[in-house]
Amino acid sequence: MESTLKIYNTLSRTTEDFKPIHEGHIGMYVCGPTVYSNAHLGNARTFISFDVIFRYFLHLGYKVRYVRNITDAGHLESDADEGEDKIAKKAKLEQLEPMEIVQRYTIDFRETMRMFNTLPPSIEPTATGHIIEQIEMTKQIIENGYAYEVNGSIYFDVEKFTKEYNYTILSNRNLDDLLNNTRDLDGQGDKRGRLDFALWIKAKSEHIMKWPSPWGVGFPGWHLECSAMSSKYLGNEFDIHGGGMDLVPTHHTNEIAQNLACHKTQPARYWIHTNMLTVNGQKMSKSLGNSFLPNELFSGNHKLLDKGYSPMTVRFFMLQAHYRSTLDFSNEALQAAEKGFTRLMNAMKLMNGLKVSTNSSVNIDAVKTEIYNALNDDFNTPIAIASIFEAVRMINSINDGKETITETDKASLKKLMTEIVFDVLGLQEENNTDTSKIDGLMNMIIDQRNHAKLNKDFATSDAIRNKLKDIGFEIKDGKDGTSYSVIN
Amino acid sequence: MESTLKIYNTLSRTTEDFKPIHEGHIGMYVCGPTVYSNAHLGNARTFISFDVIFRYFLHLGYKVRYVRNITDAGHLESDADEGEDKIAKKAKLEQLEPMEIVQRYTIDFRETMRMFNTLPPSIEPTATGHIIEQIEMTKQIIENGYAYEVNGSIYFDVEKFTKEYNYTILSNRNLDDLLNNTRDLDGQGDKRGRLDFALWIKAKSEHIMKWPSPWGVGFPGWHLECSAMSSKYLGNEFDIHGGGMDLVPTHHTNEIAQNLACHKTQPARYWIHTNMLTVNGQKMSKSLGNSFLPNELFSGNHKLLDKGYSPMTVRFFMLQAHYRSTLDFSNEALQAAEKGFTRLMNAMKLMNGLKVSTNSSVNIDAVKTEIYNALNDDFNTPIAIASIFEAVRMINSINDGKETITETDKASLKKLMTEIVFDVLGLQEENNTDTSKIDGLMNMIIDQRNHAKLNKDFATSDAIRNKLKDIGFEIKDGKDGTSYSVIN
Repeated sequence: MESTLKIYNTLSRTTEDFKPIHEGHIGMYVCGPTVYSNAHLGNARTFISFDVIFRYFLHLGYKVRYVRNITDAGHLESDADEGEDKIAKKAKLEQLEPMEIVQRYTIDFRETMRMFNTLPPSIEPTATGHIIEQIEMTKQIIENGYAYEVNGSIYFDVEKFTKEYNYTILSNRNLDDLLNNTRDLDGQGDKRGRLDFALWIKAKSEHIMKWPSPWGVGFPGWHLECSAMSSKYLGNEFDIHGGGMDLVPTHHTNEIAQNLACHKTQPARYWIHTNMLTVNGQKMSKSLGNSFLPNELFSGNHKLLDKGYSPMTVRFFMLQAHYRSTLDFSNEALQAAEKGFTRLMNAMKLMNGLKVSTNSSVNIDAVKTEIYNALNDDFNTPIAIASIFEAVRMINSINDGKETITETDKASLKKLMTEIVFDVLGLQEENNTDTSKIDGLMNMIIDQRNHAKLNKDFATSDAIRNKLKDIGFEIKDGKDGTSYSVIN
Repeated sequence: MESTLKIYNTLSRTTEDFKPIHEGHIGMYVCGPTVYSNAHLGNARTFISFDVIFRYFLHLGYKVRYVRNITDAGHLESDADEGEDKIAKKAKLEQLEPMEIVQRYTIDFRETMRMFNTLPPSIEPTATGHIIEQIEMTKQIIENGYAYEVNGSIYFDVEKFTKEYNYTILSNRNLDDLLNNTRDLDGQGDKRGRLDFALWIKAKSEHIMKWPSPWGVGFPGWHLECSAMSSKYLGNEFDIHGGGMDLVPTHHTNEIAQNLACHKTQPARYWIHTNMLTVNGQKMSKSLGNSFLPNELFSGNHKLLDKGYSPMTVRFFMLQAHYRSTLDFSNEALQAAEKGFTRLMNAMKLMNGLKVSTNSSVNIDAVKTEIYNALNDDFNTPIAIASIFEAVRMINSINDGKETITETDKASLKKLMTEIVFDVLGLQEENNTDTSKIDGLMNMIIDQRNHAKLNKDFATSDAIRNKLKDIGFEIKDGKDGTSYSVIN
């Protein structure tokens, strides 16, 4: 391929050439789920997007350390350090130990990711597993003068920080506006400044998830875990940090501030953010009643869905939009994706059996260049998929005898398509081959029976019906022909 | 059912009536895997045994909190606190961060457990996730006078402990023999007594997995994590503690000592231990070359195996031995288990379609009583399975018209078999139904083609062959008849 990889960097708001810190190696950190409820589709989109990014790096030959955390403590209901811990609240509601909630929804999350065929990250650290690291980081930030203690809680001093660093470097918001809009200090307790945020929170006596610290018993602030875990596993400066774009103004902004205040380094060179989901053009949200869970999407069990869509159809559908664009769910778009995915998988099967000729009338190299150009252009999967469908058209035309391919070109085509479709995009054949095979065999048998009936050979047609029943199929003659169902 | 549940308690070396501490609730802790290599079959047996115990408690209506840990730090090569940390050593060999090793083998372990259809535990805590709790426990043990510091490491003082408590209560070994046999203090570094063991180990500078503590930078001793995590999630006294019987003399003995020294309580009322695996009568061990991994057993890819066995065949095979007996792997025994499992699954399918009569010639209640008596007798699955096969014989006889069953009895039989076979024993239909259906349909089509060939109707026989090829089947005429293979 000729083009080099370019990545849109939220930090610079430009598309930059990608250069890893250590040649051949990539360190990537992605903010993972807070495990207090079922995995939702917005999260799934983010992690599928980063899965393709991870897979593409691996395909390019990089050694990648991909860290995606599990938030199992410290994430309060409000980003302003208010409300209850999300997991502790759910635990109280369900009368379970918080770690039982964590286990239940971590399992659900992993199962959802498995269905979407995402590769597991290299390390999956938890917030509760890194309390000591968070305490150590808090101690260092205090020592460096960017945090203060009030009543057993530690807050990050944003005003102090802004004197030396650009607090809104990632969000590009106007700091004065932020400060002026939020001057009201009502109800924010012990904080000196409205933008200050907690590094460590003193636990009330009824709080369950708490640990001893130099400042008394408490728990870490939500933003701290990612700073502590990314520097532990990837070093103080690493290549890529990612997450959903909703994390930019608070979580990632505060993460950068913490890292600068502690290590005096910007943690990541490239910040990558995925966009939001919409449903029929409206923002997907629980309160609007238009949000569905992955399982509802698979089963079709939701009032807005005409039918269910397989995990691979949904994955394919998601990759048809660029990760930085919004992705709109509609029945029409999902049905189109289902057809497209089936067409692609059929071509992948046809490809193996293509007859070879002495000449090629198709240009494999041109398609290959198009695909790599698209992926190198900030992982532009929709453009790459458009080029993949150019290859699908070639395969179908060669199969129909309208185009020809040499043995060498066929080998290149197979390598290209297998690597891009299966390895990089992470699509896979779904386990419905047996169903389609059974369909094919049943059609042959039903034809034979219809033939017997036409010839008034009812002994044969009844014998076929009975044999099918023995094997576990029931056939039904209707006005639209004969259908069958599986009876055991 | 009339009998009450009895459990063999390693602590008392007798079979005792089971009485939970809090009526209706059970707290159970099982020592989980050290994740530095692929899940091995001995571990799988232990966790399948406890899975049946967990499932039986749930079936009896208990609310169970089942905690099974993941050891991801602190487990040294030798139980005598010597050698390297197993995970750090593997990480060094493979040039990976230790947590990448942990992630790889934790995923392998979970996948193996999933294939064996074990339920996930309620909480799956990690050693690295509970360093603070282990430090706190060490502080308390020092404060209570049962541990001492030497050069930044903390050791448990077994001699002091034995003055007040019975150190060998679980193993029933003779303490004087232990002390006399191990008087040689060579090479045991800072320990005062040969039986002393580490609670906290000072980290050498090259050690990767280490944390700050009141005694300097180090890492916890292996036995401590289970004491810290069981008391955190189940309280200082809980119902059941389990593991492989190899853990009795050191790990569990030291766990009890730590809990008594810290909380002055025996942690668990009932200690349950599973027995070892043998292969053709010999102890299964890596050094003898006769140990196979679960995946090798599934694929048959091992010199000692004639063929592969499905996860459910292996599970069924394991449950045919009592958890306290050794379990011997041999090709003959596995093949017999495969036949038995198939016979059982066939009966489960036949059961639904049994014709009902006005009288029953079979006694469902008698079988039910037998099954529950077996399970209540220290979870005696082999006896329970023998009674289940009594029910299988009934089902087959009723199906053959040799016995009769009323509608009410049929409902009882279905409830009993579904609950015991699927819910309690955790067996499940394997996904080979489609294969048998395809076999059935192919046989019908091959018969039709043979019929055409016999009649010299080669147009029809060729048309059938071609149609099958389109659907993805190739047929081959051999001397033993016609066979088929799937071509895509």
